[in-house]
Amino acid sequence: MKVQRAGEEEQQAQSKKALKKQQKEAEKAAKKAEKQAKLAAEQQETDEDDFAKDRYGICPMVQSQQKLDRALVRVQDLTPEKAEQQIWVRARIHTSRAKGKQCFLVLRHQQFTVQALLAVGDRASKQMVKFAANLTKESIIDVEAVVKKVEQKIESCSQQDVELHVERVFVISQSEARLPLQLEDAVRPEGEGDEEGRATVNQDTRLDNRVIDLRTTTSQAIFRLQSGVCQLFRDTLINKGFVEIQTPKIISAASEGGANVFTVSYFKTSAYLAQSPQLYKQMCICADFDKVFCVGPVFRAEDSNTHRHLTEFVGLDIEMAFNYHYHEVIDSITDTMVQIFKGLRDRFQTEIQTVNKQYSSEPFKFLEPTLRLEYKEAVAMLKAAGVEMGDEEDLSTPNEKLLGRLVKEKYDTDFYVLDKYPLAVRPFYTMPDPNNPKYSNSYDMFMRGEEILSGAQRVHDAQLLTERATHHGIDLEKIKAYIDSFRYGAPPHAGGGIGLERVTMLYLGLHNVRQTSMFPRDPKRLTP
Amino acid sequence: MKVQRAGEEEQQAQSKKALKKQQKEAEKAAKKAEKQAKLAAEQQETDEDDFAKDRYGICPMVQSQQKLDRALVRVQDLTPEKAEQQIWVRARIHTSRAKGKQCFLVLRHQQFTVQALLAVGDRASKQMVKFAANLTKESIIDVEAVVKKVEQKIESCSQQDVELHVERVFVISQSEARLPLQLEDAVRPEGEGDEEGRATVNQDTRLDNRVIDLRTTTSQAIFRLQSGVCQLFRDTLINKGFVEIQTPKIISAASEGGANVFTVSYFKTSAYLAQSPQLYKQMCICADFDKVFCVGPVFRAEDSNTHRHLTEFVGLDIEMAFNYHYHEVIDSITDTMVQIFKGLRDRFQTEIQTVNKQYSSEPFKFLEPTLRLEYKEAVAMLKAAGVEMGDEEDLSTPNEKLLGRLVKEKYDTDFYVLDKYPLAVRPFYTMPDPNNPKYSNSYDMFMRGEEILSGAQRVHDAQLLTERATHHGIDLEKIKAYIDSFRYGAPPHAGGGIGLERVTMLYLGLHNVRQTSMFPRDPKRLTP
Repeated sequence: MKVQRAGEEEQQAQSKKALKKQQKEAEKAAKKAEKQAKLAAEQQETDEDDFAKDRYGICPMVQSQQKLDRALVRVQDLTPEKAEQQIWVRARIHTSRAKGKQCFLVLRHQQFTVQALLAVGDRASKQMVKFAANLTKESIIDVEAVVKKVEQKIESCSQQDVELHVERVFVISQSEARLPLQLEDAVRPEGEGDEEGRATVNQDTRLDNRVIDLRTTTSQAIFRLQSGVCQLFRDTLINKGFVEIQTPKIISAASEGGANVFTVSYFKTSAYLAQSPQLYKQMCICADFDKVFCVGPVFRAEDSNTHRHLTEFVGLDIEMAFNYHYHEVIDSITDTMVQIFKGLRDRFQTEIQTVNKQYSSEPFKFLEPTLRLEYKEAVAMLKAAGVEMGDEEDLSTPNEKLLGRLVKEKYDTDFYVLDKYPLAVRPFYTMPDPNNPKYSNSYDMFMRGEEILSGAQRVHDAQLLTERATHHGIDLEKIKAYIDSFRYGAPPHAGGGIGLERVTMLYLGLHNVRQTSMFPRDPKRLTP
Repeated sequence: MKVQRAGEEEQQAQSKKALKKQQKEAEKAAKKAEKQAKLAAEQQETDEDDFAKDRYGICPMVQSQQKLDRALVRVQDLTPEKAEQQIWVRARIHTSRAKGKQCFLVLRHQQFTVQALLAVGDRASKQMVKFAANLTKESIIDVEAVVKKVEQKIESCSQQDVELHVERVFVISQSEARLPLQLEDAVRPEGEGDEEGRATVNQDTRLDNRVIDLRTTTSQAIFRLQSGVCQLFRDTLINKGFVEIQTPKIISAASEGGANVFTVSYFKTSAYLAQSPQLYKQMCICADFDKVFCVGPVFRAEDSNTHRHLTEFVGLDIEMAFNYHYHEVIDSITDTMVQIFKGLRDRFQTEIQTVNKQYSSEPFKFLEPTLRLEYKEAVAMLKAAGVEMGDEEDLSTPNEKLLGRLVKEKYDTDFYVLDKYPLAVRPFYTMPDPNNPKYSNSYDMFMRGEEILSGAQRVHDAQLLTERATHHGIDLEKIKAYIDSFRYGAPPHAGGGIGLERVTMLYLGLHNVRQTSMFPRDPKRLTP
C-alpha cells in the first residue's frame, strides 16, 4: 500500500510540476510573440522608409536551392584591369569601420584583401550602411560592387590599386561576434607586440582555435608551400622512374624492439602503429619495384616535448635498389631535395615573402652538387671548435646545430649530407662499412643544422641480417617475416625517410614544428 | 654446507659438460677442415682445367665496396636495335633449363623477360654451364652477353625478337632453392589450372608470401597502375586549384558515435584512429582553403569479411567550397574521375593488357558528361525490374549491383552518380534537400555497380548541425569542437571520399580488394 501511496503522491507531484512547466512555457511563448510583433512593426517601419531594402540582408542558408548564373570574382583578381566593372565578390569581413555616413570594410579571401566602401547615397540607404557597419568580423558576405581605381595606394590591403564601391551586400554565413583570437594579433611579428603594447597570440591559443588561426596570411602561405613540397617530391621521383606505394599503418609486430610504439586494439588481439614504412618499402624492393616512395603518417610514441618532435608526422619515404654503391641512392635523394628547394624558390616566392613578414629569416642556401661530409670530418670540425666527444659517439642536438653553423661558415650551404655514421649508433639493419667495421653505410641529411632525413644502405642478406639482429639483442622470432623477405634473392638497396613538417619548418626558417603541422599531435595535444 | 657441496657438484658436472662440448667442437672443426680441404682440392682441380674460371661465380655481398663504371641495360630495353652489342644485364632467373652442353635461362626484371643462352664453347666451359644450370630460380645475377636477333619470335618472353648469348655470369643475391610459391602458378588464369591439372595459387598463400607474389607480372601491373591512379587524382585536382592537406590519424574523439572505431593507447589516455579525414577537411574549408584534397589511410573497425571491405584502406578525399549549388562539387569530382579513367586508358595500356591476361574483363566504359541519376529514378528502375523495396530504403549490395547492370544496359556506362539519397540513411551532417525534407543533398558514385565514393553537401550552420545531431541521438558534448568550427563564418561546401583500392579493383574488373592492396588488412589478417 505504501508503495502505491507513494506512487500516487509522485503522480500528483508530477502533474503539479507539469502544470507549472506548461504555464511557464505559455508565458514564454506570449513574451516571444510580443517581442516578434514589436520587431516586425519596427522592421515594417524601417522597410517602409528604406528605398534600399532589397539591396541588403541575410540570405537564407545556402542549401543548394538554385543554380544561380552569377560569376563571383576572387579578391586576388581585383586589379585595375577590372576598373568600372560591376562585379560580385564573396569574401570575409576582415575589418569594419563606420565613419559618419560611410562604412569602410576590408574584405579578405585567403591571403588577399581589398577595401570596400559603402556610402549613403543613390545606391545605399542609411539603414543599409548601418546594417553593413554592424556585421560581425569573419562573416562571409556576397557584395555587388563597382571596381574603382584609387589615387593613392591602399597600403593596408594586398589589392592596393583598387577599391570596391558596394551597391548590394548579403550575408552568406554570419560569424559569432566574439572571436577566440584576433587575426591581426595572430600575424603580428614576435617582439613587435611587446614594444607597442599590442597583443600577440600564444601557440596554445592558436592551436586550440586552429580553424581561425589557419585563416591568417601566414598560415595560408605555410600550408600552400607545404602542399608544394609534397608535389615537388613526388613529381621529381616519378620523373626518375619511382613508383608510389601505399603501406599499412596497422602492423602486427613492433619492428624495432617495441619501444616508442603505440598499441591498437584490433578485434580480439593487439596491434601496433607503424613507426616507419621501412620494412614495407624494403619488401617492395625485394619484390622488384626497384624504386619506390610513399607519403604518409608515421607514429612515434616518444614522450618528447621539444620544438621538433611530434607523435604523428608525415613521412616522405624513399627506397631504391642500386647497382654497385649506395651513393647512387644518396645522389638521387639529394637531387630530389635540390629540386624541391628550387621549385619552392621559383614557384612559392609569394608564400615565402608572406611568412617572412611575420617570421623573418635568411633565404635558404644550397649547393649543386650537394655537399657530402664524412662523419669523421664532422667530428674533427667539432673538436677543432672546442667540442669534446668520442670518435664513435652520436651527435647531440646542440652539436648538430653547431656543426650546421660551422658548415654554413665554411661551405655557405644550409643543406648537406653527413655520411658514414658509426655502426654502433645505427639500427641493426644498417649495412656495415666494408672498409672499417666501426662505421656503416649510413647517412643523415640536415637543413639549417637540424636533421630532416635518416637513411642507410640496408643489409639485404638474410644471414648477415640475422647476425646483426642477434648482436643488437633483438628477438629473432619477432622479425622472422622481415628476415625471410631476403631469402629469395634481394637486390642491394638503400633509402631514407624525410619528415615533411621539418622540411617546411626549416626551409622557411621557422622555429617550431607545430607551425607546419595543421593539426599537430604531441604527448600533450590530441585536439582539435 | 649443503649448498656449497651442491655448488661443487654442479661445477664438476659443468666442467665435464664443458669438456664434452669442447671435444665435440674439436671433432666438428676437424671434420669441417677435412671437408673444406677436399672441396678446395676439388675446386683447384676444377679451376685448373677450367679456362673460364674467371667468367662466373658468386660475388661477395654488395656492400658498396666500389663504384664500378659499368652500365646495366634493363631487360625491357633489350630490342633488335641493340643487336650484336656486348652488354651487362641484372635480372632474376625466372626459369632455367639445361640441355646437353647448353643452358637456357629466362631472365626477368619486373614485367619483362628475355631468353639467355649459355653453350659450352670458346667463352663458356663445361663447368660454367653446369654452374649456371644449377643456379636457383629467383636468384639475381649479373650477366655479360651479346644481344642476338632471333629468326623466330620467342613467344614465351616479353622480349620476343632477341636473345642473350651469355659470356659471364655472376650471382648478386642467391635465392633459397625451395620457393613458397611458383610464379608460373601465380599468374595462371583461374580455371585454366583446373582443366590442365596445373596448380594455381590461392589467395592466402599469395598474401602470406606477398614479397614473391608481388613479383608476378600481374602484381607489377596492378600496383604500377594504382600509382597512376594517385598521380592522376592529384594532378587533376592541383590543376583545378586544390591544395593538398595532411590530416591527423590519431584523434581524441570518435566522430560518428564511436562504432567501428579502433582504440589506441596514447600515453596515459586513450585515443582513436580516424575513420575518415572529413572533419579535418571541413575545418580547412572553414579556414578558407576553399578546395582541398588528401590521400591517406582510413581505418574501419568493421568485422566485415567481404570481397570489398578492408579495415585499413587508402582514402582519396576531396572537400570543396561552392558558390550556389553542390552540383558544382559533383561536377568537379566526376571530371576528376573521368581524367583518371582517360589517363589510365591512355598511359597504362600495357598494365591493363597484362592484368587482362590473367583476369579478363571488358574495357571500362564512361560517359562525358558523367551520368547523374536521382535516387528516386534508381528505385523506379529497380522496381520495374521486379525488386520490392521502399522509396526511402537504402540500397542493398545486391540491388546496387543489379542497378549497375540496368544502368549499363540502358546508358552503356560503367560509371555514374546516384544523387539525392533519402535523408534518413545518411549521416547527421548531411544537408537536407531544400525541396523535400525526406531527401538530402547527398550522392554516391559507382564503378561497375559497386560504390566507390560517398559524399554530400555538409551542414555548414552550427544551429542546424546541432539540430541534426540531436535528431540522430548523438552526444553533443563529444562533437562540440566540430560544431564550434562553424560558428565563425563557414562557406557552403560539399565533398566525398573515394576508396583507392576499390577504384583500382573495379577499373581492372578484378573481384577482390585484397588484389589491389599491397599488404591488406582485414579482421583476420594483420601480416605481413
